[in-house]
Amino acid sequence: MRADRIITLTTDFGLDDPFVGVMKGIILNINPGANVIDLCHGIASHDVRGAAFAIGMNYRFFPDRTVHVVVVDPGVGSQRRPILAATEKHYFVGPDNGVFSLVFEQEKHSLRVVHITTDRYFLNKNSATFQGRDMFAPVAAWLTRGKDYRKFGKPIDDFSKLDLPVPVRMKSALRGEIIHIDKFGNAITNIGLSDITALRSKVHDDTLRVYLGGKRVPLKKYYGEATSAALFALINSSEYLELFVNRSNAAKKFKIAIGDRVEIKITA
Amino acid sequence: MRADRIITLTTDFGLDDPFVGVMKGIILNINPGANVIDLCHGIASHDVRGAAFAIGMNYRFFPDRTVHVVVVDPGVGSQRRPILAATEKHYFVGPDNGVFSLVFEQEKHSLRVVHITTDRYFLNKNSATFQGRDMFAPVAAWLTRGKDYRKFGKPIDDFSKLDLPVPVRMKSALRGEIIHIDKFGNAITNIGLSDITALRSKVHDDTLRVYLGGKRVPLKKYYGEATSAALFALINSSEYLELFVNRSNAAKKFKIAIGDRVEIKITA
Amino acid sequence: MRADRIITLTTDFGLDDPFVGVMKGIILNINPGANVIDLCHGIASHDVRGAAFAIGMNYRFFPDRTVHVVVVDPGVGSQRRPILAATEKHYFVGPDNGVFSLVFEQEKHSLRVVHITTDRYFLNKNSATFQGRDMFAPVAAWLTRGKDYRKFGKPIDDFSKLDLPVPVRMKSALRGEIIHIDKFGNAITNIGLSDITALRSKVHDDTLRVYLGGKRVPLKKYYGEATSAALFALINSSEYLELFVNRSNAAKKFKIAIGDRVEIKITA
Repeated sequence: MRADRIITLTTDFGLDDPFVGVMKGIILNINPGANVIDLCHGIASHDVRGAAFAIGMNYRFFPDRTVHVVVVDPGVGSQRRPILAATEKHYFVGPDNGVFSLVFEQEKHSLRVVHITTDRYFLNKNSATFQGRDMFAPVAAWLTRGKDYRKFGKPIDDFSKLDLPVPVRMKSALRGEIIHIDKFGNAITNIGLSDITALRSKVHDDTLRVYLGGKRVPLKKYYGEATSAALFALINSSEYLELFVNRSNAAKKFKIAIGDRVEIKITA
Repeated sequence: MRADRIITLTTDFGLDDPFVGVMKGIILNINPGANVIDLCHGIASHDVRGAAFAIGMNYRFFPDRTVHVVVVDPGVGSQRRPILAATEKHYFVGPDNGVFSLVFEQEKHSLRVVHITTDRYFLNKNSATFQGRDMFAPVAAWLTRGKDYRKFGKPIDDFSKLDLPVPVRMKSALRGEIIHIDKFGNAITNIGLSDITALRSKVHDDTLRVYLGGKRVPLKKYYGEATSAALFALINSSEYLELFVNRSNAAKKFKIAIGDRVEIKITA
Repeated sequence: MRADRIITLTTDFGLDDPFVGVMKGIILNINPGANVIDLCHGIASHDVRGAAFAIGMNYRFFPDRTVHVVVVDPGVGSQRRPILAATEKHYFVGPDNGVFSLVFEQEKHSLRVVHITTDRYFLNKNSATFQGRDMFAPVAAWLTRGKDYRKFGKPIDDFSKLDLPVPVRMKSALRGEIIHIDKFGNAITNIGLSDITALRSKVHDDTLRVYLGGKRVPLKKYYGEATSAALFALINSSEYLELFVNRSNAAKKFKIAIGDRVEIKITA
């Protein structure tokens, strides 16, 4: 079995409706050997930014030649273009609404983007409300059958990028924010390990201090290291700074919300 | 890989319990090459009508020879029969409680229904509480292995059909109702595009008007075409009339519920 | 296609975040032919006991040589060991926190447990927060590729077991408790059919009586046999005593919670 038949799906469809199942049906019509993996369907409705983080932080865990389809697409049917991106190792298919911003940022050295126009691969040429089914699923399926990505349309370089919040670097500090609350109530920031190590090489050291709303949050290495039910921080498995309460829901307990400011300071 | 190894599952089991996973285990015991696709497990508990719409509106997106299993089965263990339906392109396996009503309606020209009685294919001959696992999953798995559907029991023609709400057609009007609220809060009616075109050929035209509870709802072609956060209508991707609010939850915002009356009038 | 490429996943990750999808990505990197089946991701956060019941009651429905991965792991990153268990028919991979207690109990005649230490199979040798991705997924994937389970570390016999609630047997009675509320609101007890038949061979007989909080609960054979919307009991599809209300939510209606006492008495 070949590894280049994997398609991942990331949507705001949830799993209570048949939308995701139908996309899989369409894919299997075109490539019965495709292996469709749900990356995440829990993106908040219409939350393009949330989808940009979900795919941007996780595509690298999939095999080379995986096709990643993202359908968080409030502009479906309008003039916003359908696009296909080819990077060194992966393909990405979805709307040109910035949903791939974090991917583009990480893959800018090898990025080629195509405006999908070759409608003979579409299920429905006049799709106005469900292009995930009519356009993106079929294009992804044809890619796993080895169709050259350049056959789907013309190259473009004016694709959309979101203005994603990036940490602000000061002399001996970093100012970031909460970008996601996960299922456990852990609050993930936009401060990456690489942002921290660019500031100073040693991370777990008492002179590097994390603050939420001015209050210090002690930095640990793993969840169980927290010695009480207070708020702690760690570098999570995606290598981003995360606030947590051991075996409890930090976001609920400390009323942490997306957008809340988090700071790192070096106190020499 | 062959396309005739696909099985879809539609249930009211949700995904928080192991019921769906266990059905897949049983299928893979019988056919390790089966490709089991979740169509939808978000049907409300015991909502046979909801399941009838979910499978009836979506089975056509799957490849020929797909086996569709539906388990919304409040009468499990009682005298209600297990059935298997063969249509021109697909198979359907589940309880004889009307869950396939919309399928039967669309496939009446080629429909053959069998009362499943050949219990040597069952996991458990005395299954009283989980026939999805003990009966429907095994029968579906054997069908994907090429077993002739006629081997599972005797043909019947007195299978159950629900009295599904159909739009009432008047001289220059149609009266339907809301049959489903999706994850986005979109309210889907039972008025199909074909019902509308039977009334008049031109759909998007100012003399064709949509009403909810007597109030006019402007008709658009896609979600983003809505120019405000008011209630609008469109023909959705399943070709049914749907009420929506662009980037918001129409059902919550306008308190729309299943059963609410929706009308179309031609004001020539 | 071979049956020994199946991996099941049981976690407390839910399906709203990309955790489960990422584990599948890692597995497919190592074995593109692996067939990953979601057994259950709805375990309550950090509920090791709930996971022990979910895997312990359901692993037997999967084909021989299936690899079952369980990640309910509040102690991730601490000194708790990663383990691998081989039984007569299956493999189990996860943390040594008691999550496999019910499996161990049922498989004690053929159980061999290994402390996983051979880190060349890991994605990340210093994984502190997501060993499901970095350690358990890779080990499971290598097992499906035929790697001998003894190559992953040294045998141990001091693995953890939870003190799971077992029914107390008295002269002509059994005292158990509610251990799970399912999606339908059915309340499942820890009283197995085998516990009952050890007490007396005939189960459905008027002298065998079920009590919840001192109130009698009539025993039925299937849900639809309940003649009213009152509380009834039956032996469920996992062969455990279960309390239910026909077509309604028993736990909500009768305020039944995990831990509530259920008794069986023989009234000669």
